[in-house]
Amino acid sequence: MRNILGSHVNVMLFGESHGAAVGAVIDGLTPGIPVDEDFIRHQLTLRRPVGQLSTPRQETDPFVIESGVYNGRTTGSPILIRIPNGDTKSGDYAPFVATPRPGHADYTAKVKYNGYADPRGGGHFSGRITAAIVAAAAIVIPALKQKGIHIATHIARAAGVADRPFGNLAADMAKLNDTAFAVLDDTAAEAMKEAILLAAADGDSVGGVLETVVTGLPVGVGEPWFDTLESVLAHALFSIPAVKGVEFGDGFALSEMRGSEANDCFVRDGNAVITATNHNGGINGGIANGMPLVIRCAVKPTPTIHKAQRTLDLETGEPTELIAGGRHDPCIVHRARVVADSMVALTLCDALSIKYGTDWLAE
Amino acid sequence: MRNILGSHVNVMLFGESHGAAVGAVIDGLTPGIPVDEDFIRHQLTLRRPVGQLSTPRQETDPFVIESGVYNGRTTGSPILIRIPNGDTKSGDYAPFVATPRPGHADYTAKVKYNGYADPRGGGHFSGRITAAIVAAAAIVIPALKQKGIHIATHIARAAGVADRPFGNLAADMAKLNDTAFAVLDDTAAEAMKEAILLAAADGDSVGGVLETVVTGLPVGVGEPWFDTLESVLAHALFSIPAVKGVEFGDGFALSEMRGSEANDCFVRDGNAVITATNHNGGINGGIANGMPLVIRCAVKPTPTIHKAQRTLDLETGEPTELIAGGRHDPCIVHRARVVADSMVALTLCDALSIKYGTDWLAE
Amino acid sequence: MRNILGSHVNVMLFGESHGAAVGAVIDGLTPGIPVDEDFIRHQLTLRRPVGQLSTPRQETDPFVIESGVYNGRTTGSPILIRIPNGDTKSGDYAPFVATPRPGHADYTAKVKYNGYADPRGGGHFSGRITAAIVAAAAIVIPALKQKGIHIATHIARAAGVADRPFGNLAADMAKLNDTAFAVLDDTAAEAMKEAILLAAADGDSVGGVLETVVTGLPVGVGEPWFDTLESVLAHALFSIPAVKGVEFGDGFALSEMRGSEANDCFVRDGNAVITATNHNGGINGGIANGMPLVIRCAVKPTPTIHKAQRTLDLETGEPTELIAGGRHDPCIVHRARVVADSMVALTLCDALSIKYGTDWLAE
Amino acid sequence: MRNILGSHVNVMLFGESHGAAVGAVIDGLTPGIPVDEDFIRHQLTLRRPVGQLSTPRQETDPFVIESGVYNGRTTGSPILIRIPNGDTKSGDYAPFVATPRPGHADYTAKVKYNGYADPRGGGHFSGRITAAIVAAAAIVIPALKQKGIHIATHIARAAGVADRPFGNLAADMAKLNDTAFAVLDDTAAEAMKEAILLAAADGDSVGGVLETVVTGLPVGVGEPWFDTLESVLAHALFSIPAVKGVEFGDGFALSEMRGSEANDCFVRDGNAVITATNHNGGINGGIANGMPLVIRCAVKPTPTIHKAQRTLDLETGEPTELIAGGRHDPCIVHRARVVADSMVALTLCDALSIKYGTDWLAE
Repeated sequence: MRNILGSHVNVMLFGESHGAAVGAVIDGLTPGIPVDEDFIRHQLTLRRPVGQLSTPRQETDPFVIESGVYNGRTTGSPILIRIPNGDTKSGDYAPFVATPRPGHADYTAKVKYNGYADPRGGGHFSGRITAAIVAAAAIVIPALKQKGIHIATHIARAAGVADRPFGNLAADMAKLNDTAFAVLDDTAAEAMKEAILLAAADGDSVGGVLETVVTGLPVGVGEPWFDTLESVLAHALFSIPAVKGVEFGDGFALSEMRGSEANDCFVRDGNAVITATNHNGGINGGIANGMPLVIRCAVKPTPTIHKAQRTLDLETGEPTELIAGGRHDPCIVHRARVVADSMVALTLCDALSIKYGTDWLAE
Repeated sequence: MRNILGSHVNVMLFGESHGAAVGAVIDGLTPGIPVDEDFIRHQLTLRRPVGQLSTPRQETDPFVIESGVYNGRTTGSPILIRIPNGDTKSGDYAPFVATPRPGHADYTAKVKYNGYADPRGGGHFSGRITAAIVAAAAIVIPALKQKGIHIATHIARAAGVADRPFGNLAADMAKLNDTAFAVLDDTAAEAMKEAILLAAADGDSVGGVLETVVTGLPVGVGEPWFDTLESVLAHALFSIPAVKGVEFGDGFALSEMRGSEANDCFVRDGNAVITATNHNGGINGGIANGMPLVIRCAVKPTPTIHKAQRTLDLETGEPTELIAGGRHDPCIVHRARVVADSMVALTLCDALSIKYGTDWLAE
Repeated sequence: MRNILGSHVNVMLFGESHGAAVGAVIDGLTPGIPVDEDFIRHQLTLRRPVGQLSTPRQETDPFVIESGVYNGRTTGSPILIRIPNGDTKSGDYAPFVATPRPGHADYTAKVKYNGYADPRGGGHFSGRITAAIVAAAAIVIPALKQKGIHIATHIARAAGVADRPFGNLAADMAKLNDTAFAVLDDTAAEAMKEAILLAAADGDSVGGVLETVVTGLPVGVGEPWFDTLESVLAHALFSIPAVKGVEFGDGFALSEMRGSEANDCFVRDGNAVITATNHNGGINGGIANGMPLVIRCAVKPTPTIHKAQRTLDLETGEPTELIAGGRHDPCIVHRARVVADSMVALTLCDALSIKYGTDWLAE
Repeated sequence: MRNILGSHVNVMLFGESHGAAVGAVIDGLTPGIPVDEDFIRHQLTLRRPVGQLSTPRQETDPFVIESGVYNGRTTGSPILIRIPNGDTKSGDYAPFVATPRPGHADYTAKVKYNGYADPRGGGHFSGRITAAIVAAAAIVIPALKQKGIHIATHIARAAGVADRPFGNLAADMAKLNDTAFAVLDDTAAEAMKEAILLAAADGDSVGGVLETVVTGLPVGVGEPWFDTLESVLAHALFSIPAVKGVEFGDGFALSEMRGSEANDCFVRDGNAVITATNHNGGINGGIANGMPLVIRCAVKPTPTIHKAQRTLDLETGEPTELIAGGRHDPCIVHRARVVADSMVALTLCDALSIKYGTDWLAE
C-alpha cells in the first residue's frame, strides 16, 4: 500500500466503501488559505451519482474537517477530512470474495493481501475513496484560482459519442465547473446519456475519454528528469480506478505527425512568449511552457456489470458464472471528471511548492 | 530538478551532453547480483545510432563502473556508472540559447534555470542522458530474468507504418532483444526505415509507438492507491524525452468498448488462474494479475529538424527563423525502445523490492 | 509541516489539542496482523496523567479505528485511529498568543505559521498529539513481539534521582511494560515522585532521562550511510517534544573512553556471535549487531510553569511577565516513556520492512 | 542501503575506500550559485590527516566536478563530484574479513551484505567517504554565508581535555574555520594533542565531543512533528561514523534543571525578539527561534587500534586475537569536525528549501 500522494504537499487516503468512513489527511499546505466548505460540498456533488446514469446508492457525503483548519483558514498543520459512510449494503458483495469479478481488483487484492482485505463494497478499492480525493482538492483549487491557475475537464467522448473541442477556453471552463454532466455541446450530452442508458438497459457498461485543461500555470513548473510535469500528472491520474491511458497535447496522434507539424513555434503575444499551436499540451522537456496544459485520460467501462461472465470459484478452483447483483454505475466517466480535476489540482499544488516553497499559495 | 527514480531501489542521474560524463548511481540493490559488463555493452549498443537512421554522432559509450561492484557482483553499496563523453561539437548548439527550438526544452529550461543551464548539446536535457538509464538497467535486467521476469519492446508503429502484433511471446521477445531495429515483421521493418529516410531527406522527422511486454511478474505487485503499477510505470516512462502518451492493455481503445467486451474473464490454466483475454494488460486495480504486462508509449517526432521554423530571438524579442544545424536523429523511436525496456526494468525492480524486500532479487 | 514518519511503513499525524480529535493514519503494514484493542487501551493508559504528578486534565482517550482493520486484523490498507478530544478549556491558553511562553513553541509557531496556527491548548504542538503515536504503535508492538522483538523503557533519572541500571533484562522489561511509573527500583521511584511534587509545589517543573532497551532485533537492520539505525531512531525520538538529547550505548561517556575500553569484543554464546560488553548499544557501523539496543533520551523540564517569567507582549513589543495558568504537568518524563517506546517500535517496523519486505511482520 | 540525504536538496554518496573513487551527486540546488573550487579544496584540507595525530595515509583528494556546473556556477542539474582514490594498501585489511574488528562495521556489514561487501579498507563504510560529504557541502556553505548563515564547530573535548566555551561568536567562528585543529584555546589545543599522542604511543585511541554553532538562521525553519530541526540534524549527524550521541542547547544537562532555569525568556534586542539565555540551543518546538543553534556530537574513540583484542574467526567459529596493522587514526575528532559542519550545512540547505522553495539560495 502506498496511499501518500506528493513529495511536498502530501495527501494520505484512508477508508473502505462499507467501513466507518473514508477520507484524507492533507499536510504541507501553507497556513492562511481560506477553506470554503460550500465549495467542498459543490465538488462532492459533482462526483455524486447523476440520476439513472449512476448507481442508485445515495451518497450524501456529509464531510467533517476535524483538524488543520481554524477560524475558516488552514493553520499549516495536517487537515483531516472525514466522510462518514452511510447507506451501505454489504451483503451484495459477498459473492465476489470467492468468485472474483472480471476486470476488477477482487482477485489481485485477494492475492496481494493474503485474503485479509475488507471485501465489502470493494473495500479500499472502491471508487468511493475518490470522494476523499475530491474533498482534499477542494481546499487547494480556490487557492490555485487565487493565483490565476484554473482547471476544468470535459467528457471528450463517452459511449462512442464525441463532445465538441474546447473553443473559448475561459467560457467553456466556467461552464464545465458548474455542470453535473460535463459536456460542452448540449446535443452531444443528450446523445451520450442515451447511449449510456442503452448500455445500462443491456446490463452492460461503457467508458470514455476525459480531457482536462489548465490555464495560468507559470513557465518553469516541472522537475526533470524523473518528476517531469507529465510524469507526476500521469502518476496521479493512473491512480484513478479505470484510467488505462494518459496523453498530453495531441498525445498518441503526435506519433503519426512529422516534426514540422508537431512542433509548436514560438511567437509573441504582446510581451509574452507563447506558441502558435499547442500540440505539446503546454509542456516542453517536461516543464510547463506557459500554454494551457492539455491532458486526456482513457476511462475503461465499469467492470461490474449485470451480464453473465465467466470466472472461477477460488475455493473449489472450478469455473463458474457470475452475474453481479448490487448497485453499480453503467458509466463512471461523468463522475470521474471531478476526480481528474482533483488529481491535477493536488499534483500541481505539489509541483508549485517544490519550485516556489511552502508559502507560495498564501494570499 | 528531481533526478531520483524509485522509492526503494534508487537511480540518480547526472551529466550533460557535452560535459565530462553522463551516468547514474544506483542504490538499494541487493548484494551478490552478478554484473555482466558485456550485457551492459550490448544494451548500450541497442541505444546507439543505427546507420543513416540516426545522428552521425559516434557514441561509443565506454562506461566505467567505479563503485558498488566487487569481484563481479553487486556489494549492496551504491553503484556509480560513468560514461565519459566524446565527439562533442558544442558550437552547433550556440544558436539555440537565443533562439529556442520549437518543441524542445530550450525555452522552458532557460526560464526555469534562470539562464544558468548548460546549453551545449541540450545540456542535461539531451537524449544522451538516457545512456545512463540504459546502463543502470542493464545491471538489473539479468537479475529479473533469473527470477523469470522478461521484458521486451517492439516498434509497434513508426512513420505511419505498423509492425505485426506479438505472436509467440517467448520467441518474439527473444528476437527483439537481439536486434538493433526492434520490429517483428521484416517487411514492416524495411517499410519503416524507408519512411524514416524519406522524412530525413526532407529535413524532417517522424515519431511512433513503442509496445513493451513483460512476462513472469508475480501476482500482487503494485501499491494502490497512489503507487499502482500503472502509476509508477507511467511516471518512469514519461521521463523519456518525447514520450507524450502512455497506455496499458488496450488503453484508449478500452474507452470505446463495453464492459462485457473489456473485462478479462478468469479461467484456469492447469492450476494457475489466468484470464482468457488480456485487454487490461496484466493489471487489475493497479496490481499485477499474472498476465503479461502490455504497455504502449507514444513517441513524438524528434523536435530538432533541418527545416525552417518560426521562433523568437529571446534577446531582442523579435520573431526570427531557425534552421537547425548540428547532427540530429530523424527518428528516435528505434533508439528509445531500449530506454523503455530500461525504465520498465528499474521500476519493476523497485516495486518488487517494496513488496518482497531488498534481498528478493538475490539468487 | 512534515507529519509523516517512515519510508516504508508510514505514520501520518493529525489533530490539535482542543480540536475535534487527534489521531494517526498508518499505511504500509502487512495484512493479517491481529489488532488488540485492549493493548491499545493499555498503552494509552500508560501515557495518561498519573495522580498529582501530572495535569489534572482527564484524558480518557476513547479511540476509534475507522479503517484498515477488518475482523480484528489489519487488511493492508491504511488504518485510521481517531481519538476524539474532550474536557478542553481553551480559555486558559488565550494569553499565550500575545505573550509566548519561554521554552515552548508559542513564538516559533506564531512566526512560522504567520499567525494562523490554532493556539488553543498548544494546538498541533500539544503533547496530546503523542496519544496518536502511542495508539499507532500499539498495533505494531504485538507484531514485533510475535517476532521476538521486545521494547521497554525506564526512567533512568528524573528530578535528579537515579533508577538502578537494568539487571535481568527479560524480567525488568516485563515489569516496566506493566507499570504506570516506569522505574525499576521502588525506593528510587518514591524518591522521584517526592522530588517531582516538591518542584510542583514550587510552581516549577523537572526533567529526566529515559533509557530504552530493545532485544531480539536481527543482525543487519539499519541502512547506512544516511539511514543508519542511530539516524532513524534519533530522527523519530527528537520528534517527541522536550527531547533535547539522544545517545546510544554509552553515548557521551564513550567520548571519554579509550578505544580499547569502548570496543565490544566478539565472543561466542553457543553458536551465536555476541559481544562481551555492549558499550556500543547494539549498533556497529549504523547496523544492528544482535545485542540489545540501548537508547537514552534527555527530556527537558516541562516549559509551562506557574512561576513568573519574563516574556514579550508581541502586539505592543513591550516586555511583560507571564504566570501560566491552566493545567500542566510538573514532569512529563513518566508519560513520555511510552511515547519513546512507540517511536522506537514504529521506526524499527519501518527499518525491518525495508530489509525484509512488507510481509515480514505477518505471522 | 540508503545513501540519499535530504527531501528537497538531495545528496547521494558512492564509493569505497580502495575502489576507483568516492564522491557525491547533489541534486535540487538552485541554479546560479558560484562554485568556489578553492573553498572545496580548503574544506577537504580540514578533513585530511594532521601530522602525527592521524593516519599516515596521504589523501590528496584531487576532486573533479563532472556535471551540474557551467561557467563556474551551478546549472540546476545534478552535480557530480568525484574524488579518485590513491595511495591504497588493500592488503592491510585482508584479516578483518575473517576476524572482525571490535567496534567496527566489519561484522555487521558482513552479515547484512551476505559476504559481498567490498572489505578493502572498510569499503563503503570507510571514513574516507566523508570526503564526499565535505566536498558536497563546500558548494552550499558559501551560498548559506551569502544569506547570512554561518556555521562553525570546535572540539569541545578530546582525550579528556576541554576547550574553553564560545565567547565572541563571530571572532571564534572565523578562527575555527581557518584552523586545522579546531580548538579555541591554544593551551587546551596543545594539551589535547599531547593526550592523543600519548594514547597513540600506547597503540590506543581516544574520542571527544564536537560543538557546532550556527548563526543567522531565520526564525521558522524546521518542520514538526517529524522533521523538527533536531530530528533532521540528528539524522544527518548520526550518519557520521563514530557519532554515538547528539544533543541541542544544554542537552542532557537540561534533564537536571528545573523549568524556571531551563526556559529561555523572551527579551528585545532593538526591534528583534531574542532570548536572554540559550539553554534550548536556538530551537523551540522543533523550529528555529532565531538564536544561535548549538549542537553537540559525542565521537567515540576510533575502533581500529594496535592493541590485542578478542574477536572470533568467523570461518572456524573459534575465538582469536586481533592486533590491527594498517594505518589508522588514534583520534578522528579533529577530522570529523568539518564533516559535522558539512552535515549541518546540507541539512539546513534542505530545510530552508522546504520552507522557502528551490530558488531561495540564489543570489
